Amino acid sequence: MKILVTGSAGFLGGHVARHLVGSGHEVKGFDAAPSSDTAYESVIGDLLDTESVTSAAEGVDAVCHLGAIGDVYLAAEQPQLAAAVNVVGSSNVAIAAAEAGAKVVYASTWEVYGEPEYQPIDEDHPTSPDHPYNITKLAGEQLLLASDRLQGVPVTALRIGTAYGRGLRPNSVFRIFIDRARAGEPITIQGDGSQGRQFTYAADIASAFELACRSDAHSIAMNIVAPEVISIKELAELVVERFPTDLTFGEARPGDVPSALVSPALAEKILGWRAVTQFETGLGHLLEDESDVT
Amino acid sequence: MKILVTGSAGFLGGHVARHLVGSGHEVKGFDAAPSSDTAYESVIGDLLDTESVTSAAEGVDAVCHLGAIGDVYLAAEQPQLAAAVNVVGSSNVAIAAAEAGAKVVYASTWEVYGEPEYQPIDEDHPTSPDHPYNITKLAGEQLLLASDRLQGVPVTALRIGTAYGRGLRPNSVFRIFIDRARAGEPITIQGDGSQGRQFTYAADIASAFELACRSDAHSIAMNIVAPEVISIKELAELVVERFPTDLTFGEARPGDVPSALVSPALAEKILGWRAVTQFETGLGHLLEDESDVT
Repeated sequence: MKILVTGSAGFLGGHVARHLVGSGHEVKGFDAAPSSDTAYESVIGDLLDTESVTSAAEGVDAVCHLGAIGDVYLAAEQPQLAAAVNVVGSSNVAIAAAEAGAKVVYASTWEVYGEPEYQPIDEDHPTSPDHPYNITKLAGEQLLLASDRLQGVPVTALRIGTAYGRGLRPNSVFRIFIDRARAGEPITIQGDGSQGRQFTYAADIASAFELACRSDAHSIAMNIVAPEVISIKELAELVVERFPTDLTFGEARPGDVPSALVSPALAEKILGWRAVTQFETGLGHLLEDESDVT
Repeated sequence: MKILVTGSAGFLGGHVARHLVGSGHEVKGFDAAPSSDTAYESVIGDLLDTESVTSAAEGVDAVCHLGAIGDVYLAAEQPQLAAAVNVVGSSNVAIAAAEAGAKVVYASTWEVYGEPEYQPIDEDHPTSPDHPYNITKLAGEQLLLASDRLQGVPVTALRIGTAYGRGLRPNSVFRIFIDRARAGEPITIQGDGSQGRQFTYAADIASAFELACRSDAHSIAMNIVAPEVISIKELAELVVERFPTDLTFGEARPGDVPSALVSPALAEKILGWRAVTQFETGLGHLLEDESDVT
């Protein structure tokens, strides 16, 4: 398939683009920032410019739409930017896909659910986002799914878990813990560290995008999360095992979402997808990769 | 109070601005289009320009934020425009209110609920919008309420019923029915006409905005709907009673939302608000006003 990947210069977009190339697809990257990856063609584009997205999507079979303000702290500081990129941008992707006759696979987030009303959370759970990041990601998802119903654009939304892997942005909890521990500085856990996360390995997420591109399923949202629940404290302890340093506790940051158990059962049923990477294995890869850099 | 009214050149914004002036407030209108109303000062502004909204809000005590793409058919045709004005615009209002230290009263819609899971629908009912209009209106509401929690901007969202009154836009069901019937042309009901609406008189809605501006309540969404349920068919019959003509039935339009009974109990409890205008009275005013024009 010929697939446009928005946000290809970013962490998860890059993983998806490389995985698609590895699976034999013809990939075109699209990002506001230049990509250093030469494994596929890339164009510099602006999600806020309908024409820019439409011309990039011309002739593709699918759009993997990962271009977004994905940094929760940036979204909190500049909600109007998150609104523009995540909502208007997603609407432009819907328009471009309609013109190209392409399917859209959208990078949504498990954070759209908000406070759990029951667990494990399936896709029928009410959505109640509370932060500029998850509010705007949900609106982008809903606009894309509306374009499926109203304009017949096939859309699949992947509500992905907290992603980790090579290339994580510097203010992610993984990078902060690893970078500090490696430098021998103490690690500070914000809050009590008990909040659990279904950390999901980037390569596993990338394979969900590939499966969703090839699937006939559409007009659907699916949780893409690893089944293991790891607390922030456990993560810190695993990092400290590798790079011994002190563990301290600080105040919780606004925008930190509470624990919730999310079920990936629908994605297994519809796409045959499962997270295959155990957390300790994935973290091990990450610690090795990061060490290579120093 | 000194109150900025966005969307003041529009149907509902105009009603709110005039009502606030009548209640003794100092009103400043803000709209992309010029206002013909001389009862208050107006500025031409752009909701998409943070600086434009911020400078207009300087020194006000409250912002009644009604500026939006409120036409569901326009929102369906140009979802990227609805996303920009309704989501980015609302985010800019939050920023402007934070700088001014002002309260925000936001014009949300009962349509954010989607398919009813129970009735009457109260404010705890899950939200599940399905159309570019209600999706973007909900995202605007959520971003404003997030700015209440995260930045301390006092925000009240009014989820208003289907509004009617003088100055309705030409493609509203009221105007279409009245204009056609008065011209002796048949009225076409889209769908079977059984869908019920809690048509809410613009003057009643305006009084909810005034009460919300003065209230200490915030960080809350409230249904602002009249208690009477009127079907589209009943509306058509009332119009035909006044201007006799034929009634015919056509296909339902996409974007038409199903019936749902919505409870205004919270607004009565918190604001002491009730819709005081009976539907037949309100419609009578409208029919008289509209007749005056011809």
